[in-house]
Amino acid sequence: MPATQTKPAITIVEVGPRDGLQILKSILPTAYKTRWIAAAAAAGLREIEVCSFVPVAVVPGMADAADVVRFARTVPGLTTTALAPNAKGAQAAFAAGAHRVSMPISVSIAHNLANVRKTHEQSIDELRRAVDVRNGQPKSDNAEIEIGLSTAFGCSIAGAVPLADVLTLAEKCLAAGADRVTPADTIGIGNPVQVKRMYAALFKEFGTSKIGGSHFHDTRGQGIANALAALEAGVTSFDTSLAGLGGCPFAPGASGNVCTEDLVWILEEMGVTTGIDLAKLLACRDILRDGLPQEKLSGHLAEVGLARTQSGGRVAAAR
Amino acid sequence: MPATQTKPAITIVEVGPRDGLQILKSILPTAYKTRWIAAAAAAGLREIEVCSFVPVAVVPGMADAADVVRFARTVPGLTTTALAPNAKGAQAAFAAGAHRVSMPISVSIAHNLANVRKTHEQSIDELRRAVDVRNGQPKSDNAEIEIGLSTAFGCSIAGAVPLADVLTLAEKCLAAGADRVTPADTIGIGNPVQVKRMYAALFKEFGTSKIGGSHFHDTRGQGIANALAALEAGVTSFDTSLAGLGGCPFAPGASGNVCTEDLVWILEEMGVTTGIDLAKLLACRDILRDGLPQEKLSGHLAEVGLARTQSGGRVAAAR
Repeated sequence: MPATQTKPAITIVEVGPRDGLQILKSILPTAYKTRWIAAAAAAGLREIEVCSFVPVAVVPGMADAADVVRFARTVPGLTTTALAPNAKGAQAAFAAGAHRVSMPISVSIAHNLANVRKTHEQSIDELRRAVDVRNGQPKSDNAEIEIGLSTAFGCSIAGAVPLADVLTLAEKCLAAGADRVTPADTIGIGNPVQVKRMYAALFKEFGTSKIGGSHFHDTRGQGIANALAALEAGVTSFDTSLAGLGGCPFAPGASGNVCTEDLVWILEEMGVTTGIDLAKLLACRDILRDGLPQEKLSGHLAEVGLARTQSGGRVAAAR
Repeated sequence: MPATQTKPAITIVEVGPRDGLQILKSILPTAYKTRWIAAAAAAGLREIEVCSFVPVAVVPGMADAADVVRFARTVPGLTTTALAPNAKGAQAAFAAGAHRVSMPISVSIAHNLANVRKTHEQSIDELRRAVDVRNGQPKSDNAEIEIGLSTAFGCSIAGAVPLADVLTLAEKCLAAGADRVTPADTIGIGNPVQVKRMYAALFKEFGTSKIGGSHFHDTRGQGIANALAALEAGVTSFDTSLAGLGGCPFAPGASGNVCTEDLVWILEEMGVTTGIDLAKLLACRDILRDGLPQEKLSGHLAEVGLARTQSGGRVAAAR
């Protein structure tokens, strides 16, 4: 970035290559993944969750995880993150060169058992082992471990998830050596009032430096509203997925993560800088269209394009 | 409503039978319109914009406007509103029994010329004539005239629309006898920062009683966020459309008004009462599916249903 440019106000973390792809029946070939990562970075994305290190039998589309991380590490200025459900996956992620590993632990015990077949105690043990792996990394890598607090806003199995349970698990994870925790609306059930309450409590208990960012799904059309509520609460990092890729395992046809280009559009219109070139970002959809011809691409902005947007909305908003 | 029930905090105005249908190529038969209106009212909707009184040659699907208003007036407790582009249409609407007539005047002069072929002065003259018509109504009917300030958030022809122009036109309309004005995001270009600024200025200049409500399109995926921004600004009435019916004449495939059921869901989750039964509201979609088999129904909530929603989100939000 030239010295004359101002640092963007917030960070968009593209999680499509991980969260978007992992649920699809189609497999995006590695060459498309690397094209996507390169194009997204060229559009201004500075952080991408590029894959997950999970058993190939469970998610065949992630068989190329190490290759994808190694490619992402060649992109200048890009923070490369990966998901790992356990210490073994974290080890593989760090070995491939991931800057940060995100490990999911569900606040809902029923969901944690269903998702990673572990109790909270067993998951915390995995975290401790991953921390040991991380501590063995060269210091120059600044490798980090973040815990995704899955089902923090509600659970498909247990229903309501008390905020107190989120705080309890967050404390345990930080005590076990996690660098940060991020509450995740895994099933897309949260609302803006809950979002503001969640972050107020997390920031108060643990301080802003220990809270990673936000992770919302657009399952009930509330994704953008929740992201903006998090922004108001002081959150500066937002997980999103190009073309809203992904979905909900419990609802065929439901949309996935908050759509990257739609969130970038509204943030920029509101005067919140993202550092992202929207035209270049929209062009990244072509890669998905070519590489995932069977899959539905979502997103509103792509339907109308940018032509009237930049002349109409932004200038109007500035008056 | 039983005396034990609390009055809902806000009013949802279903505008699908007017704004949703007017852009479609398909025509919804009158019998489906009346079924829809009756079912929506039974679900708890207390105000419906049921049709527009426009030349049949322009919008063939509105040929039954008077019949639809007459039916709606038989539904107990329902406020029946209609759109009219001019005094002649307003006269027909009042004659049929509409409680309120909404007349659109575009803040953008270029848009007004394109939309109703009139200058601002000519549109204000139409308003004055409509006010004369209204003043000739029996007083017991409390007939009202509301001006929809079209393109208040930006224009597809002129681009940016200065807030000062919105205020100027609002003042002229109120001086000419309009009961209320409502800023409309006709092309779905507005953002939450702009929404809050707009309503702060309108409330300050004219007082809350002279501002009708809100009218947002979800063209760029920002509809829910804009509605919640308006709620924060003090707005208590929200135009929405079942299944997000409608669209944008400038963008095939783009979604229409804010989706009624998605907005009701998030408001209820936030603890903002609407008085609407979501299950009954969702069932209204069946009427559209039967009556408009060629048209795409939008909306997120319908994809996932209510099963996990009420047990998960709302309870979690309350803690």
